[in-house]
Amino acid sequence: MSELRDLQKILIDFRDERDWAQFHNAKDLALALSIEASELNELFLWKKAEEANIEKVKDELADVIGYALLLAEKYDIDIRQIVVDKVKKNGEKYPVNKAKGNAKKYNEL
Amino acid sequence: MSELRDLQKILIDFRDERDWAQFHNAKDLALALSIEASELNELFLWKKAEEANIEKVKDELADVIGYALLLAEKYDIDIRQIVVDKVKKNGEKYPVNKAKGNAKKYNEL
Amino acid sequence: MSELRDLQKILIDFRDERDWAQFHNAKDLALALSIEASELNELFLWKKAEEANIEKVKDELADVIGYALLLAEKYDIDIRQIVVDKVKKNGEKYPVNKAKGNAKKYNEL
Amino acid sequence: MSELRDLQKILIDFRDERDWAQFHNAKDLALALSIEASELNELFLWKKAEEANIEKVKDELADVIGYALLLAEKYDIDIRQIVVDKVKKNGEKYPVNKAKGNAKKYNEL
Repeated sequence: MSELRDLQKILIDFRDERDWAQFHNAKDLALALSIEASELNELFLWKKAEEANIEKVKDELADVIGYALLLAEKYDIDIRQIVVDKVKKNGEKYPVNKAKGNAKKYNEL
Repeated sequence: MSELRDLQKILIDFRDERDWAQFHNAKDLALALSIEASELNELFLWKKAEEANIEKVKDELADVIGYALLLAEKYDIDIRQIVVDKVKKNGEKYPVNKAKGNAKKYNEL
Repeated sequence: MSELRDLQKILIDFRDERDWAQFHNAKDLALALSIEASELNELFLWKKAEEANIEKVKDELADVIGYALLLAEKYDIDIRQIVVDKVKKNGEKYPVNKAKGNAKKYNEL
Repeated sequence: MSELRDLQKILIDFRDERDWAQFHNAKDLALALSIEASELNELFLWKKAEEANIEKVKDELADVIGYALLLAEKYDIDIRQIVVDKVKKNGEKYPVNKAKGNAKKYNEL
């Protein structure tokens, strides 16, 4: 079993032991992911990047990734494939010669 | 190389070809992750869960996972480990006998 | 009519001309608010605070405030009252002698 | 003094008593706003729109509006003006004859 599928299985088992699939529609999973992303951001609020508490970053990042894996499972999405596809697409939006050393959005390049 | 490390390498190579490490401090990576999570949520706005466009979900979820992988790499975080640790911690916050069939937050159980 | 009620009326008229009340349940209004807040944040991504484009800030902040006003109207909330109440509550969580010159969260003071 | 200016003054006084202006750069204010918007959304997570706790909605919405007012003050933005301007702009993006009874985004109308 792949590393990602293995993590998904752990999360699904956790969910099913609690009979939570009934709450895990895609809209609420996406919302939960966003809320956890926001809790991750709170660790940096009013601070410099290097001042965040790393243990708390691990905790919140784990929640974000957990919901991302559950949402992917919901749609039977192949995570490796979508990341590879997106990198390819971004390579077209951000060609090296235009984007190098430049943080502008593609529509402002 | 593990599946997750392999994806991280693809993302890091993409970043480095564009000389973007200079922008990728942890605070802005977390912010980028949150913005992508929000774009994912926009696919469900004013809609039922099952009405989102799946191809767009793949696209936005790939962005979320991409920034999560980059942030993990930034801190040299072992993704598998933090997810496993968090599931264990959540098992204590949400014991099966209290949480089964119940979507309440742990502090309201 | 108060300034806030007047703005709410403008937004409600806009909504009703388009027959959009059917989509504006509280959950989606809160989600829309969050998405606009995220678009506001995108104006600061990879940038220093002072580098955001002010005209775009106005645009996104107007969207945030618009949804906040619509959500308040949905619940018939008195905006002035809840802000005043919250400042009072925050005064108790963040007493001047503990919080002065300090950005810590109340539970870490 | 206008109702909005009056609320801003209450918030600024609260901030200044605690010497917090030093933390309130525009980027972190926008981030704080987004985090509060996310806490507002959490009140609806795994729930139907009508199941949120109204007292908590008031509390979180007050935080959102508080940061919106502080951010507007930071840029000396006239809130009434930007909302009126945005409604006008949205009227062009969402003409009644195309948008009526339809929740599609303007670029899909």
